[in-house]
Amino acid sequence: MVSAEIIAIGSELLTPGFVDTNSSYLTGQLNALGITVVMKAIVGDDENYLENALRGCLSRTPILITIGGLGPTEDDVTKKVVARVLQRQLVLDDATLGRIESLFKSRGITMAPNNARQALILTGSEILVNHHGSAPGLWISTGKHHIALLPGPPSELKPMFEKYCAPRFQKLAGGVTLARRVWRTTGLGESSLDARIAPIYTKHKNVETTILAKPGQVEIRLTARGKNTEDAERQIRELAEEIEHSLEDFIFARAEQTLEEVVGLMLVLKNATISLAESCTGGMVAERLTGVPGSSRYFMSSVVCYSNESKMELAGIPPLLLSMQGAVSEEVARGLAEGIRERANTTVGVGITGVAGPDGGSEEKPVGTVHIAVAVPGETLHRRFSFPGDRHRVRWQASQAALNMVRQILMKM
Amino acid sequence: MVSAEIIAIGSELLTPGFVDTNSSYLTGQLNALGITVVMKAIVGDDENYLENALRGCLSRTPILITIGGLGPTEDDVTKKVVARVLQRQLVLDDATLGRIESLFKSRGITMAPNNARQALILTGSEILVNHHGSAPGLWISTGKHHIALLPGPPSELKPMFEKYCAPRFQKLAGGVTLARRVWRTTGLGESSLDARIAPIYTKHKNVETTILAKPGQVEIRLTARGKNTEDAERQIRELAEEIEHSLEDFIFARAEQTLEEVVGLMLVLKNATISLAESCTGGMVAERLTGVPGSSRYFMSSVVCYSNESKMELAGIPPLLLSMQGAVSEEVARGLAEGIRERANTTVGVGITGVAGPDGGSEEKPVGTVHIAVAVPGETLHRRFSFPGDRHRVRWQASQAALNMVRQILMKM
Repeated sequence: MVSAEIIAIGSELLTPGFVDTNSSYLTGQLNALGITVVMKAIVGDDENYLENALRGCLSRTPILITIGGLGPTEDDVTKKVVARVLQRQLVLDDATLGRIESLFKSRGITMAPNNARQALILTGSEILVNHHGSAPGLWISTGKHHIALLPGPPSELKPMFEKYCAPRFQKLAGGVTLARRVWRTTGLGESSLDARIAPIYTKHKNVETTILAKPGQVEIRLTARGKNTEDAERQIRELAEEIEHSLEDFIFARAEQTLEEVVGLMLVLKNATISLAESCTGGMVAERLTGVPGSSRYFMSSVVCYSNESKMELAGIPPLLLSMQGAVSEEVARGLAEGIRERANTTVGVGITGVAGPDGGSEEKPVGTVHIAVAVPGETLHRRFSFPGDRHRVRWQASQAALNMVRQILMKM
Repeated sequence: MVSAEIIAIGSELLTPGFVDTNSSYLTGQLNALGITVVMKAIVGDDENYLENALRGCLSRTPILITIGGLGPTEDDVTKKVVARVLQRQLVLDDATLGRIESLFKSRGITMAPNNARQALILTGSEILVNHHGSAPGLWISTGKHHIALLPGPPSELKPMFEKYCAPRFQKLAGGVTLARRVWRTTGLGESSLDARIAPIYTKHKNVETTILAKPGQVEIRLTARGKNTEDAERQIRELAEEIEHSLEDFIFARAEQTLEEVVGLMLVLKNATISLAESCTGGMVAERLTGVPGSSRYFMSSVVCYSNESKMELAGIPPLLLSMQGAVSEEVARGLAEGIRERANTTVGVGITGVAGPDGGSEEKPVGTVHIAVAVPGETLHRRFSFPGDRHRVRWQASQAALNMVRQILMKM
């Protein structure tokens, strides 16, 4: 397995609010060629830190891509520092200088003398012509390393990578092909999920397993590499089947879909419609469902009934039930689901009532207690949950659980 | 000037599409304390690369923050590798183990044994209690270095940094004092806003001015550094007054409050209640309003009326009006606001109808057309908007505009 590192250079990259899209782009491109990115670094326009980062990288990894620091100003130090580390000279390349001069001429601008710096190249390097700007890139192959120096602007970096670097890297990777799987699950915490599948994936050292947890969702990704598609697929197949089997009930998507997208697709598939009566989630489930383009096909209406009056009026909950069981109860959740389903005349009705916090909790019904009911013709499913975390987290997990219950009931229909 | 490095740990961070918001956040926090970030690195869950990165960092920089790799699974290696590099032991901390056990207990879950790994701490380190998750952070001061190990989830990292790390780093930075101002505005685009205030802030070079734009919101931040509070305040005062004056009408908050928090405060202040009838925003405004703790004091109920039938049934829109004016019209927006206000018996009623896209647009009513009405006793305010962007962006901007109209009408009450 060939591995690579990326160093992005520029003091602006170390300011808050900056997002490094270049290295994310390069990671995708390299992965697709079968090359893993094992480390990324961001350094300012500082010779010492850059030299440190370069030496560290070259001591452990055969491929290095640097981004930026090739411009005409004093603080563009990339070539100077790479030359020092590799013990090479910087020489002026006449062809490149001529190209930069004519670029300026064509724009009707007199070239400032400092632009000549961009025509300095390392001895023994190959020039990667920049068709979208003035600074050329460089490709340096030593006995041990392959190093690409690319310009920072994405509009220059991307075409240069695709035209000149991708074919070179593909050769280096020896034609490795990737096979991938992704699952999104809900209803099982990260550690319980890991306890289930760790005995499986630790047996398959050649397949990379990544687990990514968010509140109410755990994603599992497998990546296998092979000489060709069949080889990569052969490696991943057995592990994928075992994981699929062990998590079956909890998997809601086999691609990078959200739960509301999956529920939307199933509603279309079953030609079903949906309505909601939300208390503690305050419209979050409606907002998520209607965030999906085309949701007007299955989403009819919903109500947010925060006060007891609105629970009676909008979903027809009997006052006696509220006073006897309390608003946060199985009976009220069922009443909300069945009441809204009947009133909105939909296939599915959802009722959610709970204590999102920070106030309103009691010993019997602490913060995080949520009752969810889903009504379909002839059946109403109910579950009680205890969600950890703050108000936002409780509400999010409740919305996730409600959508998952809808998914489960639709699967049986 | 004290310098720091950040190492983010996790194989998922080296997959394409990943955006590292944590290190951007930490950079902002550290900068504000007078600490410069000189290098950032991202490594996978790999002991060797992490060890390499750690050793490199400690050889050149006095402050190091690591992010992630503190979880319960096999591939969470941060503590193990830091212990090796610093030649310390990992020991089980009983208090932390007890805290994790009771956290699981309170959630009604049996703790999987692997969670005990999270209670391992380095000898001679200080525990940073995690109030929002199970993995504690660690603070390690050696003769030469200060190292903070923080958990990866932003909801755990941010409060831990602010509570336990910021005061420690402030001391390390040598007592520079900051003066700050922040304004949040809505209703004015980034470039129009900048055109207004650039002539003001460019005169004050010693104060750092940052403008941060999101759809429907532009935030302005001023930061001045001084030897003490008076010194810093003296530097910032004049500029702050001029900016305040020039943006008055558009400022909705003078702190990091959301628009829904501000509207909530005003509703409490005016002893008013609110209800909503949302079409294209699909519950987003209700979700935002009810996301504020204590919102049950003023939020009564709301309806999401996507279909024409639900507009008639839930908000009493006459069928004739819908067929004559179309669902996306001033008349329907006014009808929704007044109808829901009357039915829910609240002080304020809000009606929103529009075309969020991608489908449903026409020449007369293109995607992004939204009508919003706000009804209060004796008056209904209406505005028509044309929002740019995709479905999510249109919906978000509509929710922002609706809340801002409520704010404006409450100010006059």
